[in-house]
Amino acid sequence: MFKQITSPQNSFVKELVQLKEKSRLRKKTNTFIIEGLREITLALNGDYEITTILADSSIIYEDDFETLSNLLPAEVEIIEISNDVYKKIALRDSTEGILAVAKGKNLALNNINFKNKTPLILIAEAPEKPGNIGALLRTADAAGVDAVFIANPKTDLYNPNIIRSSVGCVFTTTIATGSTSEIIDFLKENNIQMYGAALTASVEYQTIDYKQATAIIVGTEATGLSNEWLNNTTKNIIIPMRGAIDSMNVSVSAAIIVFEAIRQRNL
Amino acid sequence: MFKQITSPQNSFVKELVQLKEKSRLRKKTNTFIIEGLREITLALNGDYEITTILADSSIIYEDDFETLSNLLPAEVEIIEISNDVYKKIALRDSTEGILAVAKGKNLALNNINFKNKTPLILIAEAPEKPGNIGALLRTADAAGVDAVFIANPKTDLYNPNIIRSSVGCVFTTTIATGSTSEIIDFLKENNIQMYGAALTASVEYQTIDYKQATAIIVGTEATGLSNEWLNNTTKNIIIPMRGAIDSMNVSVSAAIIVFEAIRQRNL
Repeated sequence: MFKQITSPQNSFVKELVQLKEKSRLRKKTNTFIIEGLREITLALNGDYEITTILADSSIIYEDDFETLSNLLPAEVEIIEISNDVYKKIALRDSTEGILAVAKGKNLALNNINFKNKTPLILIAEAPEKPGNIGALLRTADAAGVDAVFIANPKTDLYNPNIIRSSVGCVFTTTIATGSTSEIIDFLKENNIQMYGAALTASVEYQTIDYKQATAIIVGTEATGLSNEWLNNTTKNIIIPMRGAIDSMNVSVSAAIIVFEAIRQRNL
Repeated sequence: MFKQITSPQNSFVKELVQLKEKSRLRKKTNTFIIEGLREITLALNGDYEITTILADSSIIYEDDFETLSNLLPAEVEIIEISNDVYKKIALRDSTEGILAVAKGKNLALNNINFKNKTPLILIAEAPEKPGNIGALLRTADAAGVDAVFIANPKTDLYNPNIIRSSVGCVFTTTIATGSTSEIIDFLKENNIQMYGAALTASVEYQTIDYKQATAIIVGTEATGLSNEWLNNTTKNIIIPMRGAIDSMNVSVSAAIIVFEAIRQRNL
């Protein structure tokens, strides 16, 4: 009934393997691969355009496939693939036997439209590890922030390890990317308060009033925020630490500040 | 000047490789391996007994070695190892060329002595991933909690991946392990309030008064807390989430609640 691909040597399969591995190819073609039923469902709900579904009928549950089929626009191509093909493209062994090819969104800053006048934005500067970006996006989803900005990104957001470690939250959150300068200009133009997390800051994070339009900015674990950020923020803030090690995981630090902002806003 | 081991086939080297890999052997011998200068230094500062130092002179900086030597008790044996031996024992390629063999501490609950009358305790039930345990211990160190309890542990705490992901915080925090029942009994006997994080709870975490003696208990990401915990806590609490995915990384959830407790205590 569906088109079938059984050979791992098939040229389309080879192209998809390249798409999984190469950021440059994802950027050039503006397409990427999504793995897993939950992740694909979240992408569809997040208005991502899916062009192709690849299903390994030796793994996928019929119910899962039905549920997904009902969500898919009619024009999406469905291809049945062999387990050999699935294993060649998939990142994980333990998924539900389903993959999608999707189109990336326009992540430009000028595409951002806030639904309220006092948005809460989480910004990460140059995060390197996909796992850290995924964890930040998971926190952003849970907190319901209005947007996540990635300043000076080191990788494209549709890196399969980001999709995976975000458990699909890369599709549920409004995201924009840009250089640090572009993002600072955007925040200034929109009168958004900027609070940069910095181990060198003297103002404790819990003393800030987060009820205005607010951006919380975190840097990398290795080097923290750049001077460009530190010199342009409204204030730099610190989470007081009392341990032997003066460092916290970046997604943990971000979560502590973001949830304090939300606590204040809900009072 | 120092004893030397150059062959990866040396029987002591083989024993150390086993110690790195086998939880059972670590438990049986009550010894484990520490990798990295910072980690070894934190263990020494945390009153861990180190029996042997193994140094790869092809990697280690002389200054680092001097600094460490000054911290070491006289009876510690120092062995110079070849790079082949180092690579066989070490978990990471990119460390400072230094390893230690250390004795485990007694982690029994009845060893715990709190320094103040209103301790703040972080408890994790049956955490599975070493990375999650490491992240929890890092949060515990930063927050300066009085103790971390691991209920129904799935692995020994001296698993090299826990040491690594905790960036040595496994040595800076007071830790005890026990069954869930034993820990509940301990908390009841010591009149410590118990707040269990649960997605099924109706009380929001920020409405709790954490200024009394308090234990914050988190379960696994997959299944949450056991009924034994849920039925015995003072209250079960929830972090209100507003996203598409109703889940947060366990170390992130723990950090949000623990830092709210600290915020209240500092008011």
